[in-house]
Amino acid sequence: MATLNYLLEELVTANRILAREGVVDSFGHVSVRHPDNPQHYLLSRSRAPDRIEKDDIIEFTLDGTPVDAKGRAPYLERFIHGALFEARPDVMSVVHNHSESVIPFGVTAAKIKPIFHMGASIGHDVPVWDSHDHFGDTALLVENMEMGRDLAKLMGKGATALMRGHGATVVGRNIRHAVFISVYLEVNARLQKQAMDMAGGSQQVKFLTPGEVDKVAGRTGSYGINRAWENWCARAGRPFQDEQA
Amino acid sequence: MATLNYLLEELVTANRILAREGVVDSFGHVSVRHPDNPQHYLLSRSRAPDRIEKDDIIEFTLDGTPVDAKGRAPYLERFIHGALFEARPDVMSVVHNHSESVIPFGVTAAKIKPIFHMGASIGHDVPVWDSHDHFGDTALLVENMEMGRDLAKLMGKGATALMRGHGATVVGRNIRHAVFISVYLEVNARLQKQAMDMAGGSQQVKFLTPGEVDKVAGRTGSYGINRAWENWCARAGRPFQDEQA
Amino acid sequence: MATLNYLLEELVTANRILAREGVVDSFGHVSVRHPDNPQHYLLSRSRAPDRIEKDDIIEFTLDGTPVDAKGRAPYLERFIHGALFEARPDVMSVVHNHSESVIPFGVTAAKIKPIFHMGASIGHDVPVWDSHDHFGDTALLVENMEMGRDLAKLMGKGATALMRGHGATVVGRNIRHAVFISVYLEVNARLQKQAMDMAGGSQQVKFLTPGEVDKVAGRTGSYGINRAWENWCARAGRPFQDEQA
Amino acid sequence: MATLNYLLEELVTANRILAREGVVDSFGHVSVRHPDNPQHYLLSRSRAPDRIEKDDIIEFTLDGTPVDAKGRAPYLERFIHGALFEARPDVMSVVHNHSESVIPFGVTAAKIKPIFHMGASIGHDVPVWDSHDHFGDTALLVENMEMGRDLAKLMGKGATALMRGHGATVVGRNIRHAVFISVYLEVNARLQKQAMDMAGGSQQVKFLTPGEVDKVAGRTGSYGINRAWENWCARAGRPFQDEQA
Repeated sequence: MATLNYLLEELVTANRILAREGVVDSFGHVSVRHPDNPQHYLLSRSRAPDRIEKDDIIEFTLDGTPVDAKGRAPYLERFIHGALFEARPDVMSVVHNHSESVIPFGVTAAKIKPIFHMGASIGHDVPVWDSHDHFGDTALLVENMEMGRDLAKLMGKGATALMRGHGATVVGRNIRHAVFISVYLEVNARLQKQAMDMAGGSQQVKFLTPGEVDKVAGRTGSYGINRAWENWCARAGRPFQDEQA
Repeated sequence: MATLNYLLEELVTANRILAREGVVDSFGHVSVRHPDNPQHYLLSRSRAPDRIEKDDIIEFTLDGTPVDAKGRAPYLERFIHGALFEARPDVMSVVHNHSESVIPFGVTAAKIKPIFHMGASIGHDVPVWDSHDHFGDTALLVENMEMGRDLAKLMGKGATALMRGHGATVVGRNIRHAVFISVYLEVNARLQKQAMDMAGGSQQVKFLTPGEVDKVAGRTGSYGINRAWENWCARAGRPFQDEQA
Repeated sequence: MATLNYLLEELVTANRILAREGVVDSFGHVSVRHPDNPQHYLLSRSRAPDRIEKDDIIEFTLDGTPVDAKGRAPYLERFIHGALFEARPDVMSVVHNHSESVIPFGVTAAKIKPIFHMGASIGHDVPVWDSHDHFGDTALLVENMEMGRDLAKLMGKGATALMRGHGATVVGRNIRHAVFISVYLEVNARLQKQAMDMAGGSQQVKFLTPGEVDKVAGRTGSYGINRAWENWCARAGRPFQDEQA
Repeated sequence: MATLNYLLEELVTANRILAREGVVDSFGHVSVRHPDNPQHYLLSRSRAPDRIEKDDIIEFTLDGTPVDAKGRAPYLERFIHGALFEARPDVMSVVHNHSESVIPFGVTAAKIKPIFHMGASIGHDVPVWDSHDHFGDTALLVENMEMGRDLAKLMGKGATALMRGHGATVVGRNIRHAVFISVYLEVNARLQKQAMDMAGGSQQVKFLTPGEVDKVAGRTGSYGINRAWENWCARAGRPFQDEQA
């Protein structure tokens, strides 16, 4: 069982990695379910991911109420995290981002699909959540549990969802897994766009077969993820911790 | 009320951030209205934004006359700033740049429109000013008040204008606001180009609805801008100042 | 004859260069044939290329068995290396990567061909190996000698092969040569994609003539490669060794 | 009159800037006419631009003979420089590069033309020299005076020429001018490609008018170039020298 301190350090590292690898800019966030209380989660106060320190992390109940904010402002969109932890007992970490190559797939008819083995963990289909469908004209932010639950419902059992005109949300079985999928969702989108340019759209692109997606995703474990994690830690100037299951 | 020294520091920081975030290269500039005299503004001497120090900043009257240049050469295009401060009492800061993803939208029929929530502050429409319309063959530079006023007129009450074959001009209610819009004008253009490639033009791209643009822009305040500003300061190696209203 | 220590240092340098020049990310690997035993090769333990130290390197027999792993996990895909050293006595070094501009050419009908003189060493044709053809749905990894030999067979006497939905494999007469071709395979793909965008496909692009490819490749020796190698060493923070033939 | 030492320092700086600004990679070179003997020029020995020191610079006669090579290997393509200094008394500096956004314009029907004011100095037309026209299948290198003179003839009185399947050559009235045009030839090509993607080719792109090109180019003097040069020096870690006419 992972300790609280281990997860706090991991969360800081995850924020820095997401910034360093170009998945988040000054916005976006990553959370982890509380190790001692599955009805709580840990998420930074409102701050750019590359600036976050351990002391910035706040504990929240699933409905987004801070246990003790100490006067610090939370992210408006923390409801994304709570709604997914509520709907998905298998989910231990959530990433929300404005990943640049991904956003265009949320505003056009093109669907992101795994185009190389590193992209298999994004899943067979990446659904697009459009806040306008149920909420009309909004500031596009997931600013309450109702919107968060609507997004979680659309996401179903998947690992990823795009958000029209906004970004993407990714979940994982731990922090490293959620970050790994987030990075390769961006890379997959970038490669797919190039392939579509060259082939005149998705029709003539050879994506992974469904069987391949399942086989690759089924084998995406610590062996591969930790190889990337060690490298990303070094690039982000963060220590690499021994993994706690 | 912001003090003069605060604004001089902000102006240096703004120049460095615009360079670091890829909005300006060796050219482009940013100004602020003088806090004690709304008929004056502050702008660096002719120097690349990433090199500017506090001592480089010169005070100008709205018609572009330096109060005391101390032998330093001003930017030829300072008239962009004066004309906008003259026409727009609500404007406190002006950015002029040659933002790379933005320029192609000034020389083709494609119109930049908000494609994700971070782009909402560019406004519903981004007009294109073509110096050729009223001034014929020129060096494309805004080198007198007549040209500056023509640009300001085209811009109307908006926050942004493209300049055909040249770049863009952005205004804001303070320095951070003008820089924020400048950064996301570039990002929005980059994302929109990708989406257009994928959709075969703008027609099949889902832009933000007009209502969404208004709702997002209406909520773009210090909460969000300062999150980015703190991050950009760190990336640019500049201290983050407490905001002065 | 190159000494073992020289080659171990070269191998570390090659890994760092491939990372620095954007040919590998946290995955991919490079090997060299053992200088004293052509039936053995040297390859790092499972680790990201930019993190590799001399102590990480393990000696393998051609079938992928470590001589003494000392408990360290090898790369699953080491069979790529063994199969090519087995099939090709002229090959002294093998690079496997997920080079970003290259992957789209493995999933579309477009063929990579030398578009500028620096790309001539990739060869007249760059074949695409599709693991699905003979192995059906897999995790796309070359995880045994059978798959490695199938890839080597497809590659024939060439220097490069793409792997559908996965990446590329490159061979050379020494480490520097294999790295050089890997870097310019990526650059060539990037340039070719731009040219295809502009020309509406490959049909209207002027590639090098077959005679030009032969003349350039025939002259790609130490004179040119070492000019790049010295530069890449400096960029990767590694010492430049005098070349051992 | 510029001193020899001033020009040697400028030449080192120019090499470093071209590398830092992405105009050259490990290849490409820049020369200057000798200040005391217009029939001689100064050019580094065969070395990557980002590594060059003052001691690497060799004096050559216009036909490419080193005055005193001290055993150092020269660039094979030094004939580009000699032929242009021979044909063009107005030219004081020559840059040869493999600028990435430029190369695709040499292998497709698309012509580079000034698309924004910073690109005006590339000239109204950028001709494409194809070595195959007069020399058939070669290694594409300009490896003798005959080929150099053929390139110089095609270039005429212009500032720039593309070389099919190879790169570009740029000339200037001094080192800073040649570097400035080289940088903005690359930027212009990058912007033009984006505009062409968006407009479906060059036909619907608004380029600068011929009158605008003349007006901008006529005003591209020390005022603007030195603003960039100071910035580029700092980015390349080189001191900024007072300009010597």
